[in-house]
Amino acid sequence: MSGTHLEDFAVGEVIESAESYEMTPERIEAYATEFDPQPIHIDAARATDGFFGGIIASGWHTLSVTMRLMVRAELFAGAPVIGVGVDDLRYLAPVRPGDVLKAKAQVTEIRPSSSRTDRGYLVLRVTTMRQDGTPVITQAWTVLVPRRPA
Amino acid sequence: MSGTHLEDFAVGEVIESAESYEMTPERIEAYATEFDPQPIHIDAARATDGFFGGIIASGWHTLSVTMRLMVRAELFAGAPVIGVGVDDLRYLAPVRPGDVLKAKAQVTEIRPSSSRTDRGYLVLRVTTMRQDGTPVITQAWTVLVPRRPA
Repeated sequence: MSGTHLEDFAVGEVIESAESYEMTPERIEAYATEFDPQPIHIDAARATDGFFGGIIASGWHTLSVTMRLMVRAELFAGAPVIGVGVDDLRYLAPVRPGDVLKAKAQVTEIRPSSSRTDRGYLVLRVTTMRQDGTPVITQAWTVLVPRRPA
Repeated sequence: MSGTHLEDFAVGEVIESAESYEMTPERIEAYATEFDPQPIHIDAARATDGFFGGIIASGWHTLSVTMRLMVRAELFAGAPVIGVGVDDLRYLAPVRPGDVLKAKAQVTEIRPSSSRTDRGYLVLRVTTMRQDGTPVITQAWTVLVPRRPA
């Protein structure tokens, strides 16, 4: 699956990330220090006593990495991914130091704009997975995609 | 609004970020280079010809900053923010270099767990705003919060 216009896609198609991304301790700490400075992400001693029994990556870090994986997969053949919204995002499992992430996106809906003939919307079910295949986050992206001139 | 247990909150309460966060060109480029390497975020010449007429911040960057602002606001008085999910996230307006972001969260629902008496869920409507008050992203967070022993 790959394309630049709404007409290039079909419901059910899947694009998988070609790359993977290792959540090293250094990356987890660097992201969390800037964007999610909670002990559970940056303080090993306090995290050990916490809800997950040790350091976990910020959920927003895993989401950021998911975007990287999909951009690198050239979801739209290099054309920009213009996000409209995100729905049904669920955190399913923690991401721990050393985990290696991949991601995939499945087209679940194709919807031409009702007001503009030059564009439409794709809904993609995006799943982020650990190295053992366990899904860690699922979400539904709605993205704006141009239509070909009639 | 601030508290560590479900009983500390009431529907309608609002917490606002005390800090703000400037989306400098350097921060926009650094985040996007790592997590969202699309020309619209990192290539001024190509961004000028694109959908938004210039560089805009990655939506995931604005979302990451939103988490920072809410963590710094001590949403749960320093207790961890354990995310369950995100719904109804909408990108409303672009964030451009130099914009300064703030955020606020309003409690819209308080729901004790049906299976565990020691916990419950808060639903928060989170809004991220530019310096002129324009909302740029809205979303609904569902977070896990402990209950006090009866």
